Amino acid sequence: MKKININEKFGLFNEHWSPKIIGELNGQDVKLAKVKGEFVWHDHKNEDELFFIIKGILKIEFRDKTVELHPGEMLVVPRGVEHKPIAEEEVWLMLFEPSSTKHTGDITTELTVDKYDRI
Amino acid sequence: MKKININEKFGLFNEHWSPKIIGELNGQDVKLAKVKGEFVWHDHKNEDELFFIIKGILKIEFRDKTVELHPGEMLVVPRGVEHKPIAEEEVWLMLFEPSSTKHTGDITTELTVDKYDRI
Repeated sequence: MKKININEKFGLFNEHWSPKIIGELNGQDVKLAKVKGEFVWHDHKNEDELFFIIKGILKIEFRDKTVELHPGEMLVVPRGVEHKPIAEEEVWLMLFEPSSTKHTGDITTELTVDKYDRI
Repeated sequence: MKKININEKFGLFNEHWSPKIIGELNGQDVKLAKVKGEFVWHDHKNEDELFFIIKGILKIEFRDKTVELHPGEMLVVPRGVEHKPIAEEEVWLMLFEPSSTKHTGDITTELTVDKYDRI
């Protein structure tokens, strides 16, 4: 049982679109990610996903609207809802989702990470 | 599906030791709380609990040590581990925990809240 400082953790990596696990509880992971550019359209069939913005502005496109998230704002994307994150400038974010969640859902692309590092 | 601004949510209440639900995902709640003073010793038999500090300094006493958490820091308290939060000055924090979690565990005190408001 050790405290986790998220700014220290953000200092440990620079890759984009490659979430890092910083904590686990009740079968859920807490992850940090740095993202920039456009991600792929995807959904998670069985997992709701929480995005919490630490730095920058993240747009999340849905098929019927776009939500813009600023630091201190969060959004829960329910399971089965297609979404596509876009960051015009670098964004730092925290994710909270089941440990089973793959960040690109059922889709495999060059962005897909098979295993998330723990930092 | 609506974005949640945590500063706006913190503006909606002032009670201490009375967590408010701001989001739900995968059977877990995201809660905000303002706390000041000493809470009671308790544990959660079946639920791990995440504390993430937004403002102020929270001490969490355990039977064998004390952990001091500053803004941007988090701690996962595993199920079954007795703990007692203490805030000398007011602390604003975010909690992630299963929706079944009672904030005072199995203990009922004058601080116990039976039902958490959703804000």
